[in-house]
Amino acid sequence: MKIEAEWMRGGTSKCWVFETENLNETRMDLDQLLPRLFGSPDSRQIDGVGGATSTTSKAMIVRRPSDPSVDVEFTFAQVGIEEATVDWGSNCGNCSAVVGLYAIEKGWVTPQGDVTRIVTRNTNTGQVIIQQVATPTGALPIVPDAQMPGVAFPGFKVGLGFQDPAGKTTGELLPTGAASDTVVADGKPWTVSMVDAGAPVVIVRAEDLGLNAVRYDAWKDVVEQHLDTLDSIRRQAAVRMGMATTPGQAARAVPKLAIAGPPSESDPHTDVNVMMLSMGKPHPALAITGSIALTLAARTPGTVLSVITGYTARPTLKLRTPAGVIETWSEEQQGSVLVGVDRTARTIATSIIHLPETLGNVVEASLETATR
Amino acid sequence: MKIEAEWMRGGTSKCWVFETENLNETRMDLDQLLPRLFGSPDSRQIDGVGGATSTTSKAMIVRRPSDPSVDVEFTFAQVGIEEATVDWGSNCGNCSAVVGLYAIEKGWVTPQGDVTRIVTRNTNTGQVIIQQVATPTGALPIVPDAQMPGVAFPGFKVGLGFQDPAGKTTGELLPTGAASDTVVADGKPWTVSMVDAGAPVVIVRAEDLGLNAVRYDAWKDVVEQHLDTLDSIRRQAAVRMGMATTPGQAARAVPKLAIAGPPSESDPHTDVNVMMLSMGKPHPALAITGSIALTLAARTPGTVLSVITGYTARPTLKLRTPAGVIETWSEEQQGSVLVGVDRTARTIATSIIHLPETLGNVVEASLETATR
Repeated sequence: MKIEAEWMRGGTSKCWVFETENLNETRMDLDQLLPRLFGSPDSRQIDGVGGATSTTSKAMIVRRPSDPSVDVEFTFAQVGIEEATVDWGSNCGNCSAVVGLYAIEKGWVTPQGDVTRIVTRNTNTGQVIIQQVATPTGALPIVPDAQMPGVAFPGFKVGLGFQDPAGKTTGELLPTGAASDTVVADGKPWTVSMVDAGAPVVIVRAEDLGLNAVRYDAWKDVVEQHLDTLDSIRRQAAVRMGMATTPGQAARAVPKLAIAGPPSESDPHTDVNVMMLSMGKPHPALAITGSIALTLAARTPGTVLSVITGYTARPTLKLRTPAGVIETWSEEQQGSVLVGVDRTARTIATSIIHLPETLGNVVEASLETATR
Repeated sequence: MKIEAEWMRGGTSKCWVFETENLNETRMDLDQLLPRLFGSPDSRQIDGVGGATSTTSKAMIVRRPSDPSVDVEFTFAQVGIEEATVDWGSNCGNCSAVVGLYAIEKGWVTPQGDVTRIVTRNTNTGQVIIQQVATPTGALPIVPDAQMPGVAFPGFKVGLGFQDPAGKTTGELLPTGAASDTVVADGKPWTVSMVDAGAPVVIVRAEDLGLNAVRYDAWKDVVEQHLDTLDSIRRQAAVRMGMATTPGQAARAVPKLAIAGPPSESDPHTDVNVMMLSMGKPHPALAITGSIALTLAARTPGTVLSVITGYTARPTLKLRTPAGVIETWSEEQQGSVLVGVDRTARTIATSIIHLPETLGNVVEASLETATR
């Protein structure tokens, strides 16, 4: 048995794109099928299409929904590497960027005007993402030429607009009801903001850690000396945001924690210096979901972030991370807030993946079950 | 522009297989085309089909030659990752294992009998490799089921027989004319064998380093204390084998050096304990070319290896490496020696790779040149 798939780059990730219909034809449980197609469990994924890293072991499953207000519905699957598992718990911002391009290339959406708007909905999170694909002459450019940081080659330009991203986890942009709160950790009070947009994030002020813009390069060293205190803040925030009943029960991955401070005066390309903690460690960049949370926090009066950036209805926000400056944009449209980032995407290969041996066996078993 | 390719696993490598004709149609210089298709230069190869490791950044280019005695001719390309380069200097034993399977799957060779014999010739080295693909009912099994060490999933069984591999670099199996020689290093004499088969290799006796089978696990530590001495032996061997005019001018990669000793009496699955040095460091396993050299050395009376294994016309040789036991086989047929190893191979995906933007430009330039 063989399965059609497109191998696409979305932002800084490589993603295998499947159509729901093609996967359904296998009559296989996706939690078994996807790991085997990717070559898992195997740290090298040498017998499958996976790339043996978290950013290259990803699948997108796409379909045209019956709901006429949505052009494409998609589900993200993070495929395990050492383990034959699939994590369906979150979306991937980078892989999201392939969905609009896929719809145009497959003729699901007809390009219109200089920028073609594709309404997509992620089923892992319920998030609607309005994708804006550059189609300068009413079509995709023959030669993709948009660049983005972290990718050596150009692609097609895709704007990802997260529609009304607030409260997807907790129901509220500000789950505590306040734009800022005080948390006590390591025997002293910390002024923080807890926001839920894209992902739940607790924002800590850099100055409370003794950090300033002049020595942004040294933030990581200082932050690493305060990891216990910061995790204590994060766990207390989990409780206040209604995501855990006790600090000890807070998940390791959410909420995330961001440290934010004003930029250096000599750094005109930055609105705010940021360092994100992910799984208890300083993150070299910023997940797209985290950048959405910070952007909405900057738009919200009274948050520690809006105090840093100065509340104005700014159309863009430039966040300095260890890996470089990330620019986000936001706008209000017909009562909705759209918060977004620009990525590039490209189709690497149109493929037919050969369904290997063990699946042949499993398929037979499924058929037996189905006809029993 | 788009290029057809099969993505195949051969042994412990992943290889992209192209037909010469399809590549020629691009009118592109392969030293430019392949790196771009693979996404190089980029340590992550995120915009191409490469897997960002040396064992997953490999291409095989295959064609049906006019010479009727050869079924398939193939060229191996090691595609650079951080650099946009291609190394054409050697063959890859693992990727070689895809060639016979490819010929059967494409209908170039009709399976016959339980084992189908495909005569292949590698153009990088001039080596003829007789491939024996298991076709139990006169066809490839519907479900591939052959296992091999280092690969988590089964594939089709492929025997790789290197035909008369001796002397491909220096012209002689024993370039010095002797089965064993004495080299002086670190102030004392060493009895070594210098053989050229598959690759040029100098074989050192484990006992001369104070190593024995009882403590094979500890070989690496001891070997690492003698790297300078061993490299001195290797460089002197390069001169004696006619591969360098002075020890200082010897290449880093060739000849290779192998340390060999008798197996433990409690280890019936091993004929010889081996540790290979590659680029000056202990290798965790054994390149296929190195295993060919050792196998022919074991067949040759008077080499330090044949003294260890006891010269008999044994059909198989079991070599213990840090990564496990590797079994080779050898036979004489119609005046030819065939030395081989068994691998497994499988087609992962049938693909059309999208030729990216920069190549569009380069193609135009080539066309201009061609019509000037």
